[in-house]
Amino acid sequence: MAPPKSRVTIKDVASAAGVSPTTVSDIVNVKGRVDPETRARVLKVVADLGWRPLRSARGLRTGRRGIIALCLPRRPRSGDSWVLTSDYDMRLTIGAVSAAMDQGQLLLMAPTPANDEDVARLEVDGVVLVDPEEGDLSRLALRRNGMPVVTVDRELGSDDPWWVGVDNKAAVSNMLDHLLDQGAQRVAMLTADSPWAWFEDTQAAYASWCAKHGFEKLTALVDRANPESTAAEASTVMLSSDTPPDAVITDVYGAALGVLRAARDLGLRVPQDLMIGSAVDGHVLETASPPITALDLQPMDVARAAVLLLERRINGDDNPAPVIVGEGYLRIRTSTQRTSAVRS
Amino acid sequence: MAPPKSRVTIKDVASAAGVSPTTVSDIVNVKGRVDPETRARVLKVVADLGWRPLRSARGLRTGRRGIIALCLPRRPRSGDSWVLTSDYDMRLTIGAVSAAMDQGQLLLMAPTPANDEDVARLEVDGVVLVDPEEGDLSRLALRRNGMPVVTVDRELGSDDPWWVGVDNKAAVSNMLDHLLDQGAQRVAMLTADSPWAWFEDTQAAYASWCAKHGFEKLTALVDRANPESTAAEASTVMLSSDTPPDAVITDVYGAALGVLRAARDLGLRVPQDLMIGSAVDGHVLETASPPITALDLQPMDVARAAVLLLERRINGDDNPAPVIVGEGYLRIRTSTQRTSAVRS
Repeated sequence: MAPPKSRVTIKDVASAAGVSPTTVSDIVNVKGRVDPETRARVLKVVADLGWRPLRSARGLRTGRRGIIALCLPRRPRSGDSWVLTSDYDMRLTIGAVSAAMDQGQLLLMAPTPANDEDVARLEVDGVVLVDPEEGDLSRLALRRNGMPVVTVDRELGSDDPWWVGVDNKAAVSNMLDHLLDQGAQRVAMLTADSPWAWFEDTQAAYASWCAKHGFEKLTALVDRANPESTAAEASTVMLSSDTPPDAVITDVYGAALGVLRAARDLGLRVPQDLMIGSAVDGHVLETASPPITALDLQPMDVARAAVLLLERRINGDDNPAPVIVGEGYLRIRTSTQRTSAVRS
Repeated sequence: MAPPKSRVTIKDVASAAGVSPTTVSDIVNVKGRVDPETRARVLKVVADLGWRPLRSARGLRTGRRGIIALCLPRRPRSGDSWVLTSDYDMRLTIGAVSAAMDQGQLLLMAPTPANDEDVARLEVDGVVLVDPEEGDLSRLALRRNGMPVVTVDRELGSDDPWWVGVDNKAAVSNMLDHLLDQGAQRVAMLTADSPWAWFEDTQAAYASWCAKHGFEKLTALVDRANPESTAAEASTVMLSSDTPPDAVITDVYGAALGVLRAARDLGLRVPQDLMIGSAVDGHVLETASPPITALDLQPMDVARAAVLLLERRINGDDNPAPVIVGEGYLRIRTSTQRTSAVRS
């Protein structure tokens, strides 16, 4: 496609969408209240016509650079790359890029800043910080430097309302209910001892669910830097005990593959003898044999909502509340389809 | 993980890797000749220790900002988002983010600039421009503004050597040879009429291959903005003719699904009656029923090589040559596994 020959203006957009230029401006700047249908129609016209707000106009009015940053943590399994090629981080990135561009913003991808110098390097209007840990030093450095921040998932022990996520507890409860439907009577959990809200929420959901159904809790820890082999070891111990679980869930990415390996080594059939569920989805689970049931934590929705919430914060919104985009989607695959496996 | 408490220095990296600080500096700045094993070892230490070159030191010496941009074209199917959620663009993005961060650079994600104002907004050291079209106006605008550019795939009709890609012709020939192995005797191609090197290369590879094997060329065009339905229409016409093809390949993302639909509607079995291959891979092809054979065009390798080539250009390398990262990988799936389908 050739780029448009002459610059599309806000009037062209307003006229094509049947609204006033002010409405277009409000929508693009995430100001005021606009009917969702109108908003969707206007954004479609913005995209169709390829219109983006003039930076100079925005800059003069708002003092903004027109750039926001997405800071990804260095994941423990990322090896010699800064970015783990997990589906979650990939989709988070793509969702943020897409949302930023829809808003007429550029997106700067950066590692989570470690100190004031790193923060100074972020010449942006605001930052989406992914998975802050308890007492997060990056967030403190950003705050010291007056940088507007929105986090993906909340920070443990913080009451900062500027965060976006899914309802982790509801998501995990839904997966546990599904296991119960499929006949599970003793569900174990493999989790990690890490200062993230994610692990607190998943462990709390598991504990409540066990209490509600009168099940004994059966928990083991895996090493997030080495999830597959440590999960295989922990599962082997559990599954060789006198009272083995008939289902195992895990909230650590990659650990489900270790559970699967342990089951295979012990001659257990999945899902007939053992059901397996992962609270984090990824391509490796989809292509495992059998494919493993997992929670889609809606990373693209989360990233988009985080970019929009950051826009609100940058624009001076003083009425913040966390944005929960959903309860995740349970992707039911063979590893927990005991009913149909028995039938077939 | 807590960010490191005290700043890691280049001496720490050099000492841990058993090389001199100069070698570390050369590797990070992509200067001089370094043994690949040493390079890999040093980059691993850089990542393990979380070291990044001080921006001030770099800036003082080189006048650099420490930021490069990845400019993605607006794809015809991207609807109301700037970024198509195709696996190719996603992996290209992730590869570029990862490579930039490994180099101590930040990565700015931006739509392909349409004019000088867009270019002025790119306050970066250089740009990776994806899929330039013939006489690309974005590239002209970047050149007018003195911006160092590397493109992903070459620009049609340009002899600019600063580009990175896979060997498109070899990749397509490999797929055609595989079809021949599986007994294809009449292979059709669905392609698009667009000013990109990609389509020129795939069409040339198909023409040479047909000539070499004495096959008649059988080509139809599909609409890149609407590939599935236009491919279904074109396939229906071809497959209903007196001399129908027994295999169809396409170089348009998404078109293979239309071929599959047409085959199903005509009661043809895939792969027994018709084999289908896509020259662009994606998740929808993997999960199609049956899964469709496709070329993995190595987007992460291409993006990484583009970032490294851009570093060389920014650093004043005056001996450029295109970088071909490979011939792609043929992902053989059920849609072309006629031999095993017959056996089973």
